[in-house]
Order: sequence, then structure tokens, then C-alpha cells
Amino acid sequence: MSLVVHKYGGTSLGSIERIEAVADRIVASRSEGNQIVVVVSAMSGETNRLTALAHHITDRPSPREMDVLLASGEQVSIALLVMALQKRGVDAQSFLGDQIPFKTDSGHERARIEYVEPKNLLDVVRRGAVPVVAGFQGVDDIGDITTIGRGGSDTSAVAVAHAIEAEECLIYTDVDGVYTADPRIVERATKMANVEFEEMLEMASLGAKVLHTRAVEFAHKHDVPMRVLSSFEDGEGTLVNSGADHMEKPMVSAVTHERDEAKLTVLRVDDVPGIAWKILGPIGEANITVDMIVQNTSVDGFTDFSFTVKRADFVRAKDLLERSLQENGFHESTIAGDDAIAKVTIVGVGMRSHAGVATKMFETLAHENINIMMISTSEIKISVVIDERYVELAVRSLHDAFVLDE
Amino acid sequence: MSLVVHKYGGTSLGSIERIEAVADRIVASRSEGNQIVVVVSAMSGETNRLTALAHHITDRPSPREMDVLLASGEQVSIALLVMALQKRGVDAQSFLGDQIPFKTDSGHERARIEYVEPKNLLDVVRRGAVPVVAGFQGVDDIGDITTIGRGGSDTSAVAVAHAIEAEECLIYTDVDGVYTADPRIVERATKMANVEFEEMLEMASLGAKVLHTRAVEFAHKHDVPMRVLSSFEDGEGTLVNSGADHMEKPMVSAVTHERDEAKLTVLRVDDVPGIAWKILGPIGEANITVDMIVQNTSVDGFTDFSFTVKRADFVRAKDLLERSLQENGFHESTIAGDDAIAKVTIVGVGMRSHAGVATKMFETLAHENINIMMISTSEIKISVVIDERYVELAVRSLHDAFVLDE
Repeated sequence: MSLVVHKYGGTSLGSIERIEAVADRIVASRSEGNQIVVVVSAMSGETNRLTALAHHITDRPSPREMDVLLASGEQVSIALLVMALQKRGVDAQSFLGDQIPFKTDSGHERARIEYVEPKNLLDVVRRGAVPVVAGFQGVDDIGDITTIGRGGSDTSAVAVAHAIEAEECLIYTDVDGVYTADPRIVERATKMANVEFEEMLEMASLGAKVLHTRAVEFAHKHDVPMRVLSSFEDGEGTLVNSGADHMEKPMVSAVTHERDEAKLTVLRVDDVPGIAWKILGPIGEANITVDMIVQNTSVDGFTDFSFTVKRADFVRAKDLLERSLQENGFHESTIAGDDAIAKVTIVGVGMRSHAGVATKMFETLAHENINIMMISTSEIKISVVIDERYVELAVRSLHDAFVLDE
Repeated sequence: MSLVVHKYGGTSLGSIERIEAVADRIVASRSEGNQIVVVVSAMSGETNRLTALAHHITDRPSPREMDVLLASGEQVSIALLVMALQKRGVDAQSFLGDQIPFKTDSGHERARIEYVEPKNLLDVVRRGAVPVVAGFQGVDDIGDITTIGRGGSDTSAVAVAHAIEAEECLIYTDVDGVYTADPRIVERATKMANVEFEEMLEMASLGAKVLHTRAVEFAHKHDVPMRVLSSFEDGEGTLVNSGADHMEKPMVSAVTHERDEAKLTVLRVDDVPGIAWKILGPIGEANITVDMIVQNTSVDGFTDFSFTVKRADFVRAKDLLERSLQENGFHESTIAGDDAIAKVTIVGVGMRSHAGVATKMFETLAHENINIMMISTSEIKISVVIDERYVELAVRSLHDAFVLDE
């Protein structure tokens, strides 16, 4: 008898038929001897519909009221899923954020989780029933509804799994696991049985949009094993945990890529203290996320400074940059931009104990005549920015070079 | 400075444009010096949409989960209306049932109101802000969401008005007041400035679907003045209160009618104790509402027994009746049914102090050659059942006879 959390996202609950299928899956999992706490998102499209209603009224809806509005989406899901379970003869009970309670701070629209009370959920489990929890929402000290940020249901699920000390947090989604590369690009990409938290973190923030970074961080911090699997077909999925013996690991676990990027370079900028802050400050203030940042060694007191942003933010970032250079009096500087780039990354905890990984990556790309525009590394990943046209070629050749199909 | 409750129904909130119009109306009412607590329904169509989702899953959704599901409709309304008010520079704050709290018993889908706490609402009013309350929903002792029954937002509004000791409970709807008769039938029907609770109660249960009976009963019991007015145009509407001097009243205040009726008669049924229970018991158990009931004096130990039901329940009621007669061994009895009938009612507290009202009603109908099939009276109303074809003629002639256009 193992206690597990099942998390179902919006796509898995996108219609009555899919909700029924989720109920069937829960029944099957119970018959295998599992005790289950379910965490759900809003039905797909619902959050967008509600957000659109608010934005028809105002560009700046009150965060408190936005949370009241959006939390209604999960409220609908939990009620419908409980009904579907009850129809199958399964005792089930819905839980809103304040009924658990799922305590957060009062930072509406992006509240931080403070404490998840396990007692009420476990009482329901002990009577043989299935608690069905509204993800994404919580309650603050004064009883106001909060939400923990878009896509937060994964994080809710991990927090619940941690609170009730579940053996695993199963994230049901529309893919059947985590692959060594995008199977649409690399035919021989293989599903990984196991990924370590740190690898998953790099992959989550690098285009492998299977799990939300925050959920993986939470799971990593509290050592809650997660499992990514398909809500539409059977299978073991991919287990994400803290791993065991790094020496056994291959050097590289997976190749990821992200197309949705653009690059900005400031040429001949004065190499003085505070320069990065002066350049990037206005961009951060405009809520534009900056990803890679590279600064070259200076020559003659000038340096070149490059960074990448989401492609959708490219024009706005460029405008802000031009204004900031003028305001700071950097009259010698010029800006170069490129919005047809892609980022390709190799990830693997094995890099820690293997030398020569970077060399092999650069050699592989050179053999294919792919020019590297920017490089950024961490302990367990190497990212390169290349011309978007070569992204498939790069991913395929790296997948071959590191023999990821075995 | 007067403290009032504004209640807006689903039609008044049926689109973003209408929500904006409601916000405008609240702003205007505030600028006239009113302190306002707003109670809202779900956007029109929303409750039906959610109910349909549940019924796609199961014919018998759990009442607790049905309440969780349906309460989400009002949750959306309060958030959107607060946003629209804030856009207009009005401080506003939404309230869910458990945030007031609006305490009820645990009778899901038809909970009884136990207590409405005024403090939180009045705190918001005192800081100069507008509380926007989700109607229809409450919370029980264990923190579960309850709903007080369909159309219950009128009742929520009256309960809130009573709790905060508001001067008036303004019910904004799609008509501009209560009329002496349906203006679509009687061209010269006039809007009444004032109706007494008891009259409104008779009218509410008799086809004038402006206010829900339960809301009027609650207002009557606690003496909360209500006002029916249009959310689409300006006007004083109709004040519904306990009235003043009955001697000043006309004999009859209004003529109402209801088409949606059917009649069932059991002929030659044994006139023994318990007969009404035996006949009507199975019908009540099947949740069919019986309206008028008439039993004639018996002849030779047999009597005739007639009652009316909603037309949609006619066939089902007839089947139940046939079965019940067989089971009870009433082999001499036969059933006659008519589903093309209508009920016409004259209402007025003035009837209490005027004789001859009934005579005048019957005389008027006789002059028009309209046959009366059933009669039912109370202290302040007389209802007759007639052939549906004559309903307009009956309403018009009674409106003329009692000079209601003055």
C-alpha cells in the first residue's frame, strides 16, 4: 500500500470525456493498491478564458480579485472529477485551498507556499476515500484566496506530496516521459527511465517544457520523487529524483533546444563598474526575462556585451537598450541584434566527473560547420547559441556524438 | 447618507459591457450619497453551463460537489465587478460566502440561512469601499461551501440587507417594476409605486416572476424594504414593504396569470380519511409541485378531487396517479386531465376590508363567457383556473373591471 499524489493538468481534464478517463485511471491505480491524493489544474482553456474576461475590463486587474477569479477554474475541476469518481463507486471529496488549508503569504498572483496541513487530507485517505485538491490556489492569513503563479499546479502537487509524505508525486501530462532529445527532431531519441533533479532543472528551464522549474526546485529541496507520465497511455514514465551513483552515469543525459530566443549585443561599451546593471536594469524593470549573458574581456577600455531574451521581447528590449545607452552617454556604442537564433544545450550530472565534454560538443558542431555565437556553462550543462537554421542538425549530431540512443 | 444593498442578477451581468454598466450605476448611486453593499448572481448562462457539465458526468451529482461547482459562477462575477469598480476609482472588495461569513446549515443545494455576520462587510463600508458579495452561496459549520437553492441570490441580498440593517434592498432586474398586470397583455397596465409584502408573495408564487417567493418571505419576516427596479434604465421601480394604511388601498392591486399549468381530476374516489394523502403522496415523493387542490363535497360516499401541477409534470403526474389508484384499489375511480389550462389571479390586501370582490370577479368572467374550472382563495387573493385560450381576455377584462389603470 503506497501513498502517492496524482497531478492532472488542464489538457488531461480538457473535456468531460477526459475527466472520465482520469477517473478511470485513478480507479485502476487504487486497484493496484495505491492510496491516492489527486491535485488538478483548471480545464484547459479555462484560465485563458477567465484572464480574457478580466482584461476586457481593465489592463491592470487587482491581484486580489484576479486570484478570486482564476481560482474558480480549479474549483470547477475538483467538483467534476469528484463526481466522476463517485459515479464509479469511489468515495471522494474535493478540497479548496482554504479547506486543506494550503497556507501561503499574501503575494497575490505569485504567492509563496508557507505550509500545507496534511491532517484533513490524510483523514480522508484513512477513511478509504480520495481527496481531490484544487491546485494553483491557497489561502493567506486573513482568509483571502491566493494563487501561486501560472502553471503552479505542479508545485501544488509537490507541496501536497511533501506534506503528506507521499512516496511519489506522479505528474500526468500529455507526454509519456522525458526524452534524450525532442523525438520530433531526433528519431532515435529515447525515453529516460530516470533523471536527476538537477538535470531536470536545467532541462525545465531550457525548453523541455515537461515540468515547471519551480515544482522541480521544490521537489529537489524536499527530496520528493516525481514521475512524469502520460495521462492518455500506460507506461512507467520518467522518474525524477535525487539519483544514486553518479559514476555510473553517462557524461551527457540529454540534448535540449529552444528556438524562441533572440540575441542583443552592445558593441564597444565602456568597460567600467556597474555597466551590466546600467544596460540590463531597464530591461529587468520592464519585466523582460534575460536568459544568457556574456561579456568579453575588454580591449582598449571597451567591451562587447551580449544577452538573450525571448523572441517576443526582442523589439521592446532593443528599444529600451537604445534609450539606456543614450541616457548613459555611451555614444561610441552600437547595438547588434539577431532574432533568428536558437539555443542548444547538453545536460548531464555525469559532466561533473567527466572531462572533455565541452570539447566534444564544440568539435561535433564544428564538424557540421555550425558557428557558435555564444557559450554559457554550468556544472552540469553547456548551452550554445547558434543560427536557428541549424538547430535540428545540431541536436541530431550531438545526440549521435554522445550516443544517447543507447 | 443611507446604507443600501444593490442586487444584480445574471441578466444584468450577462456580458463585460453589462458588468461595466452595473459599475456605472453603482458609481452614480454612490455620488448620490449612498453607501452600497452589492450582491451578485452568476453571469447569465453560467449556472446552466456548469449544471450541464455535471450532468454530462452523472445524473446524480453529489450535492456537496454540486455546490462547489455552482458557487464558482458567483466567484467569477464578484471578481469582475470589483475590477470594473476599481477601474472607476472606486475602492471595492469581493466577498465569498466564507469570507463574510454567510453561515448556513449543511443542506447542500438548498441550505437554510443561519446567520450573516455584518462586521466584515461594515468594516469595508466604513473605510469608504464597496463590498461585492457572492450571492447564492454560504458556508456551513465545517467550512464546506453551500448554496441556498436556485435563484437564491435575491434571498442572499435580503439576508445581507437585514444583517447590516440596510434601509432598502434594491433588486435590479430586467423589468422596471411590478405592474398591475402583464403589460404585454394589458396595454394600460400601470407600474405600481408600492406593493405590500403579502401581495408580492401571492404575486411571486403566481406567475409574476419578478421576485423569488423565498426572498419576499425573508424580507417580510424581518421587515426589510425591497425595491424592484431595472438595471438597464433609470426609475424609482416598485417599493415592496409592509405597507401602511389598508383602508386607503384599492380592493384589488393587480391581476396575474400563469399559463404553465395542467389540471388532473380523480372522479368518484372513495371519500375516506387519508384520501388526499394517498392520492398526492406519490406525486410529492416524485418531487412534483402541486399548486391548487380542490375537493368537492362527497355524494354517496364518493368525491371528486382535482389539483394542478406544472405542465411539464403533467404526464408523469398522471402516470403516478393511475398507479396509485390501482394500488389503493380505487377501481371505480377514473382520471380526467387537461393540460391546456391557465390560472388567473386577482391580488390585493384591500380584499380584507372589501366585500364582494369574488362576486365581481366571477361576474366579469361570466360576462365574457369564460368558464371557471377551479377556484382557490386566500385572504388577499382569488385564483381561478380557466381554459388557456381565454387567458388574455380574462386578464384584460378583470384589469378593466377593477379599474387598475388609475
